[in-house]
Amino acid sequence: MPARYGRVMAQRAGGRALCALRGRLLPPGPAAARLGSSGPALQRAAGAEEADAEVSTRKKTFTEVQTERLEQADRSVLIRCPSKLNEKKLLQYLSSHGKIDNYFFFENRGVNALIEFSEKSSVTSLQAVTGIPKAAEHHVVPYKSRLFTFTLKNPGSQAAEERPVNLSPQSHIPVNELIPKLCSADSISSQMYILLNEYQLTEENIKLRYLACSLVRDFARAYFPDSTVKPFGSSVNTFGKLGCDVDMFLDFRDIQKRATQMKKGPFEIEYQMKRLPSERLATQKILSIIGDCLDNFGPGYSSVQKILNARCPLVKFSHQPTGFQCDLSVSNSIAIKCSELLYIYGCLDPRVRALVFSLRCWARVHGLTNSVPGTWITNFSLTMMIMFFLQKRSPPIIPTLDQLKELADEKDKHIIGGYDCSFVSDLSKIKPTKNTESLDELLCDFFQYFGNFDFRKNSLNLRKGKEVNKPESSPLYIWNPFEQDLNISKNVNQPQLEKFVAVARESAWILQKEDKTQQMVNKEPWGLAAVLIPFGKSNRNTMKNRTKGIGSETIKSLLDSLKRSIERAGRNEDEKRSGKRADK
Amino acid sequence: MPARYGRVMAQRAGGRALCALRGRLLPPGPAAARLGSSGPALQRAAGAEEADAEVSTRKKTFTEVQTERLEQADRSVLIRCPSKLNEKKLLQYLSSHGKIDNYFFFENRGVNALIEFSEKSSVTSLQAVTGIPKAAEHHVVPYKSRLFTFTLKNPGSQAAEERPVNLSPQSHIPVNELIPKLCSADSISSQMYILLNEYQLTEENIKLRYLACSLVRDFARAYFPDSTVKPFGSSVNTFGKLGCDVDMFLDFRDIQKRATQMKKGPFEIEYQMKRLPSERLATQKILSIIGDCLDNFGPGYSSVQKILNARCPLVKFSHQPTGFQCDLSVSNSIAIKCSELLYIYGCLDPRVRALVFSLRCWARVHGLTNSVPGTWITNFSLTMMIMFFLQKRSPPIIPTLDQLKELADEKDKHIIGGYDCSFVSDLSKIKPTKNTESLDELLCDFFQYFGNFDFRKNSLNLRKGKEVNKPESSPLYIWNPFEQDLNISKNVNQPQLEKFVAVARESAWILQKEDKTQQMVNKEPWGLAAVLIPFGKSNRNTMKNRTKGIGSETIKSLLDSLKRSIERAGRNEDEKRSGKRADK
Repeated sequence: MPARYGRVMAQRAGGRALCALRGRLLPPGPAAARLGSSGPALQRAAGAEEADAEVSTRKKTFTEVQTERLEQADRSVLIRCPSKLNEKKLLQYLSSHGKIDNYFFFENRGVNALIEFSEKSSVTSLQAVTGIPKAAEHHVVPYKSRLFTFTLKNPGSQAAEERPVNLSPQSHIPVNELIPKLCSADSISSQMYILLNEYQLTEENIKLRYLACSLVRDFARAYFPDSTVKPFGSSVNTFGKLGCDVDMFLDFRDIQKRATQMKKGPFEIEYQMKRLPSERLATQKILSIIGDCLDNFGPGYSSVQKILNARCPLVKFSHQPTGFQCDLSVSNSIAIKCSELLYIYGCLDPRVRALVFSLRCWARVHGLTNSVPGTWITNFSLTMMIMFFLQKRSPPIIPTLDQLKELADEKDKHIIGGYDCSFVSDLSKIKPTKNTESLDELLCDFFQYFGNFDFRKNSLNLRKGKEVNKPESSPLYIWNPFEQDLNISKNVNQPQLEKFVAVARESAWILQKEDKTQQMVNKEPWGLAAVLIPFGKSNRNTMKNRTKGIGSETIKSLLDSLKRSIERAGRNEDEKRSGKRADK
Repeated sequence: MPARYGRVMAQRAGGRALCALRGRLLPPGPAAARLGSSGPALQRAAGAEEADAEVSTRKKTFTEVQTERLEQADRSVLIRCPSKLNEKKLLQYLSSHGKIDNYFFFENRGVNALIEFSEKSSVTSLQAVTGIPKAAEHHVVPYKSRLFTFTLKNPGSQAAEERPVNLSPQSHIPVNELIPKLCSADSISSQMYILLNEYQLTEENIKLRYLACSLVRDFARAYFPDSTVKPFGSSVNTFGKLGCDVDMFLDFRDIQKRATQMKKGPFEIEYQMKRLPSERLATQKILSIIGDCLDNFGPGYSSVQKILNARCPLVKFSHQPTGFQCDLSVSNSIAIKCSELLYIYGCLDPRVRALVFSLRCWARVHGLTNSVPGTWITNFSLTMMIMFFLQKRSPPIIPTLDQLKELADEKDKHIIGGYDCSFVSDLSKIKPTKNTESLDELLCDFFQYFGNFDFRKNSLNLRKGKEVNKPESSPLYIWNPFEQDLNISKNVNQPQLEKFVAVARESAWILQKEDKTQQMVNKEPWGLAAVLIPFGKSNRNTMKNRTKGIGSETIKSLLDSLKRSIERAGRNEDEKRSGKRADK
């Protein structure tokens, strides 16, 4: 075995052990360490260097993480492999093009490998020996991407050495498989961490997301060499769930920065460029053509759909090689700041992500959120409600936005479109919370808090971390953290809000009244599992037992009234499927 | 003055003198020397090296010329300059980015300069100091091309040093200005060389054409890095007229060549590529998107028109910075071979091009050819008729295609789509003609030859250099030189052919009967000038004199019948404007 390849294998083994330690045991390490850390850094950190690596990665800012991940993705390729494979031979061959920093296999219409080389030049080296598909030489679009197909030259002779490879999962288990896992835990807190570990993005999935962006960037760079394509929203804000869409921004800001560089000499020198009556039109045209290029030149892009007349023009597409559904729009600085804010909150305390993942799952199970835009609460609004709730604890678990702004230094200052979007980027400047509440308490209190919130009078202001009088009559008013005159939940109507309140109250009631020991003996869902079963569809016996256990006519009638209100809201869901899209 | 800049100026002066000597005096040097030579080679050849340079440039093959010109274009940029300019300062500034091999100014909505650097890196160096237009920063499409705008930083302070620059003409004079010039010549032969020199592509115009291709190639290379965009047809076949369209081919052949390179290792490695049901569909999609990119990203591209359902799908567009109307299609090897064949014929003897230019002008004046496709004779068909005529002289002025094929060596062998397209590429292998006829004779004999050709029975076969029986009943049958089962003039209908014959007879009659001395005294058009005046519209006195000079009723009635047939054909012209486009 060549020395180079041996080293990769050693790193890989170290990395796996560490990943298991970090990601799959309970409770997980700080979120920042999982999301903010790079694979190779982690893998090299096996053994004695482990503690150091964690310290150094924990401190990474949002921007540092993005820059590092994008750079890794730039030197990564995707290979469709033979279904049976000699992993050693594959790596040995690939190592002949240069050192491999990281790799993994995954299933997606066959076995695929993501290979992260140490150097970009290795990609070029591999491309130099890659052929155009021969069987249909004249019928392919000869766009040379970083997607390859490897087939065995002599399939028969190597059969003995081939064995199935370890496949990294790219999707989470369905709720019905999750429930039994949750029931075997020993506390609600443990249940929440189990859910987090099953649902959160894996190191591998994050690499695939950045690669998906990097591949689209190759298209954009063809014409705009300084452009970048960055993920935003759930792929990067620490709250993304396996299987969630990849939201991408096409960013031209680097170009505009360079425009100010002017050199000596008697002339002002400018490019001759196509001028358009508005920036919006330029955005639409660029997105439109990049959409066409993906559709017509790009291997594996399908269902390309241009939505150019939306408030924020975008191109939706499905990328089969990575398996992602993607949305490409043109960079919006405030949306990036929102992702960064959530990233910071997600990194500050492990309870934050555990609570968000549990509550997002809960909201989806009960039809409070939906994958399509509508009059329901978005994941973003729900997350902001959770953040607000965490700001309101005593002592607070996360700081207010005004407090984060006070910690900002000169380089953190950002005024975007007249709005002050400054807040601290360096996580180490934020003091850890003194709050020691358990997730059991927090989950139950969340349901109680919003089950009793005076939505008619009050709005949620995360900048100040307190309720303030609603400036207008929207049923649910959550101040946009940066554009302070906007309500991020303007789309939510009264029936949807009422449904949310009703389900929250029902959930609080279930958690408070239940008898865990009895339920475990009866093999009935308990704790988090109990609130993740749709109330309408839950086991008839369970419902009967519950009602029996309470035995009060008052509660029976309350339940009936709740059921009716839930059904009413459900009908509403089907009727109105339009509205603002803000599921970021 | 820096040494580098001084050298450029010296070269330039040398180049100009040489150009004047070569291109503007009569008779011109061999066509190959003008079209086949590179500017810098010419310019460096001033003085003692001149003769050598001519010998070396005369021998260049079609492919060598194309390769050299494309490479020059790759390192060229186009600059929109201030209307008044200190040429010295401009060159001094540009030289700070690298040595300049060649440059010229031309008028096109203001003063423009084409700058040909010695090294490609100079272009990158200039781009590095170039800004995005500031006035409308958010409303431009930030595609960075090789088109720049220079403005003066301090227009006032430099005013004293600015003077108009020498502008290279990019269009020919109109026919009505040409006629008096022709009348002052001393022979028809001189007249034909005057016309050639006024109409033929200049060194500068050829550079602009290759640059126009190179700029489109930048778009194609964005996605297909191995692709090239090459001019074909009149821009390169030595018969192009100033102002003619630029026909471009997008060529992917390099890519397909590399597909066969396969390296060691246990795997076959292929790109994942978009597969399409047919090559035609791939061509259509690629042209469509490149058309959109030019239209939406490219500065100065306008009137982009996709004609994708044609037999040969193409994109038409106007490129304002170079001033060309362009047609982009996907490479057709046989069309390239046609261009090369004409290039060889055009280079063999100076009379070839002189005759073609005169006859093309004559045909256009009389409405025998037209810029739009239709039932009339195309320039390509007319040129092939002239080549056939020259093959038929005794001794022949140019060889037959079969003779050229006999001279072909191994590397000249090309079988395209089953057709043998082999012919010699090395001009020096072809023996010069022993024919010494004057152009006066050739012009007159051309009119007589085709005025009396038995088009009903015979077809023109350039491969054998003789008339053969028509294989089918098309009025005019000219064998496609390579695809021997095709008639290149299938589009021509009987009235158009009759009109051609009639005008040829009339022209022969004018040239034979005219009294040059008398006409010069009367300041009447004579020789070539006389046949370049539309017969219907010619000076009433001239017509009267001519008729009087002959004084025969027979001829009078012949004239009237001719006039009627011309008018009939003219009406036909307006009615039918569809048909095969073969003006290559």
